[in-house]
Amino acid sequence: MPTREITRLTLYGDSISGNCMKPKWTADLLGIPYDWVEVDILSGGTQTEDFLTVNPVGQVPLARWPDGRALPQSNAIMLYIAEQAGSDLIPSAPFRRAQMMSWLFWEQYSHETAIAVRRFQKHYLKKSDDEIDPNLMAKGRRALGVMELQLTYTDWIVGDDMTLADIALVAYTRLAHEGGFNISEFAAVERWVSRTEAALGIPHAKEAA
Amino acid sequence: MPTREITRLTLYGDSISGNCMKPKWTADLLGIPYDWVEVDILSGGTQTEDFLTVNPVGQVPLARWPDGRALPQSNAIMLYIAEQAGSDLIPSAPFRRAQMMSWLFWEQYSHETAIAVRRFQKHYLKKSDDEIDPNLMAKGRRALGVMELQLTYTDWIVGDDMTLADIALVAYTRLAHEGGFNISEFAAVERWVSRTEAALGIPHAKEAA
Repeated sequence: MPTREITRLTLYGDSISGNCMKPKWTADLLGIPYDWVEVDILSGGTQTEDFLTVNPVGQVPLARWPDGRALPQSNAIMLYIAEQAGSDLIPSAPFRRAQMMSWLFWEQYSHETAIAVRRFQKHYLKKSDDEIDPNLMAKGRRALGVMELQLTYTDWIVGDDMTLADIALVAYTRLAHEGGFNISEFAAVERWVSRTEAALGIPHAKEAA
Repeated sequence: MPTREITRLTLYGDSISGNCMKPKWTADLLGIPYDWVEVDILSGGTQTEDFLTVNPVGQVPLARWPDGRALPQSNAIMLYIAEQAGSDLIPSAPFRRAQMMSWLFWEQYSHETAIAVRRFQKHYLKKSDDEIDPNLMAKGRRALGVMELQLTYTDWIVGDDMTLADIALVAYTRLAHEGGFNISEFAAVERWVSRTEAALGIPHAKEAA
């Protein structure tokens, strides 16, 4: 992989990973050209010597540019490409932008770590409910409740306009049913999932499943 | 707490939490005036009805301003107050800034979740090593190894200058020994901890302990 010729923005990712879809959807929405390199996490694609040369942290997604620069972390990649494109997916008002940042950190700390992790264990590792830490269901339901509270008042996570926080949070929220979460208990979240999927031009995950 | 009169920036936090120290140190370094409200996590201070009115997510740190605005998430608070102050703790070069963001997300996802969590279980919940998930030690050591790799080449996490990424990462790295990690195995990290503590004007945690 390191010897691959890079002629434009290249996104390394695993298509089953919500984190990897975030920069891809952002690039698609903004019309930013890129090459996609599929890296299979389950078969160890992020832990090969070749991949670790590109990203010693051994994580996808990873963005690379022809001049050799590389950037890991889904939310950091989204932020950088949206900023470079001058996109209004990043609010220009400083406090709105701060609120978006707050949701982006919350997503990685309090949402992904329950909803994505439970989905991975149930849907991909095929663990039974008894084998899965019960805290993950409680933590995930609490995260969905926090989103429900916000989305009862606003159409988008940060207010009246779609931002990168919506893209970040929809990535695993739309797949929450694969983790055993009943999204229909959270009516405002469920409507927001459809709204965000439509804005991104991606299929409705529950029906596609 | 919600009835408390807010006359200037107010930071709610627990002094034993590295996450809560991040915005405090940033404000101190930049000379930004604030009031500190101590919230004791262990005795349930973040789950009282009063605190949940201020932050429904039930987490500290939280920043509040006299006009009613509130902002959770340690890294988002640091970013906002540093940006408002025009501080060079946020690099002006876009890709350097993107690298700092990448480290901030990595800190919350791959570093805090091992090093802070193991410290909390060992040092505060007084669990024995046998009672602690062995993955936390492995994950934490891997995180320290990633930092060691970077700090072998640069004095600061993002390069030649101190940024918010150093403040974020030092918060729990300086306390890693309380989680059973042997920081002296990571020589460049150990030197960087002292360098960052000196820059922040805070005591060396290992000697203070």
